[in-house]
Amino acid sequence: MPPVVTFYSEAIDRNQIVLSNEESHHCVRVLRKHIGDQVEVIDGLGNRFTCELADEHKKHCRLTVISSTGEADLGYRLEIATALPKNIARFEWFLEKATEIGISRINPVICDNSERTKMNFDRSKKILISAMKQSKRSHLPELSEPIKISKWIEQTDHTDQQLIATCVGGDLPHLKSAYQLGKNTTILIGPEGDFSEKELKLALDLGWQGISLGAARLRMETAALVSVNTISILNQ
Amino acid sequence: MPPVVTFYSEAIDRNQIVLSNEESHHCVRVLRKHIGDQVEVIDGLGNRFTCELADEHKKHCRLTVISSTGEADLGYRLEIATALPKNIARFEWFLEKATEIGISRINPVICDNSERTKMNFDRSKKILISAMKQSKRSHLPELSEPIKISKWIEQTDHTDQQLIATCVGGDLPHLKSAYQLGKNTTILIGPEGDFSEKELKLALDLGWQGISLGAARLRMETAALVSVNTISILNQ
Repeated sequence: MPPVVTFYSEAIDRNQIVLSNEESHHCVRVLRKHIGDQVEVIDGLGNRFTCELADEHKKHCRLTVISSTGEADLGYRLEIATALPKNIARFEWFLEKATEIGISRINPVICDNSERTKMNFDRSKKILISAMKQSKRSHLPELSEPIKISKWIEQTDHTDQQLIATCVGGDLPHLKSAYQLGKNTTILIGPEGDFSEKELKLALDLGWQGISLGAARLRMETAALVSVNTISILNQ
Repeated sequence: MPPVVTFYSEAIDRNQIVLSNEESHHCVRVLRKHIGDQVEVIDGLGNRFTCELADEHKKHCRLTVISSTGEADLGYRLEIATALPKNIARFEWFLEKATEIGISRINPVICDNSERTKMNFDRSKKILISAMKQSKRSHLPELSEPIKISKWIEQTDHTDQQLIATCVGGDLPHLKSAYQLGKNTTILIGPEGDFSEKELKLALDLGWQGISLGAARLRMETAALVSVNTISILNQ
């Protein structure tokens, strides 16, 4: 028996699922699935559906749900807010790896020292979907459009525990000891060149806790991934 | 004052250092350093030299050592042996990130299910050097040429603690609980498609301990990096 192929769809209406243009193409043209064939669909919200092809339309492939199961999420909630690196491939690499290891939400932020302020949202989301499928997860990390960091810090209530990774400020506790198990957590990672004094002051004034990620100087996307993996390890 | 530029050299003879062709070009042509200018050199063995330009030769730039300091290494020893992914960029990404986070040695191994058996050694070493400089480390991770896994397992004595990450074998302890602080450790990471039965048996017969990296299905290079970061966190 060939391995089950998993598709992703947001268009699930009761027991009917319609695949996107791209997923339909992959299902009908590439894999040559026909009416009556069984495939698996995930909705990115933790549900996994066993389906049967009802209409092998090459652009709007329609499926009928036979059964479904709900899967547990990470068991903890972790958001990473990070500046975008000049080389977007480094951010895209982070998206893939963070999804594999486990993350709830990614918020790109624009800082005073940011070398990049834009990203391709659709392309980024595709990377998340692909990594979710590849790692056999069924929860898609949330992703937002880049937003100015001051606005983001001020307007959002965020989570129970708000940590900011910075090199400034001397003897900061390591993420490993600052993190409190069971608390919904946001970790803020600055650009190469760190946060500006103003940004740091704003966060600290609003109760964010400064943390260190160790003595080594890490690239931005490495710092973000080290944070994701540290929280994963602490929750094992 | 401009930031100090760090060069890498293996050609250190008492108080004289000769830079490689490439480093000489960067020093003399790109940065336009002249006789008498000060630069910094690391040897990849933990020594950092403050030097003065003695001969601004564009291919064999010569420096005189003024002073030197020795820097501590990681404080633990970690070797990763890993299969090579089909897409070599994924391995090169691992080289960079592992150097930033901290690793002693990388041994590429060729497994029954390997999709790739070769790598460009010089290019790989350059990535290590560049990541070492970028992360302000002064110890260069050791790197070996790819070798057949059975030969590697059989011929080498390796380290105090030898762990093999596999999906086979049911209820294996997580790396986090299997790792013993203070022990020189080797972790073996298999290819997509895991180790063959024969390979796994060989390792287990020779006393390797099977470990898990958690429930998620990780890509090979993600598994390798998660291992590196887990050991780093446990040593913090």
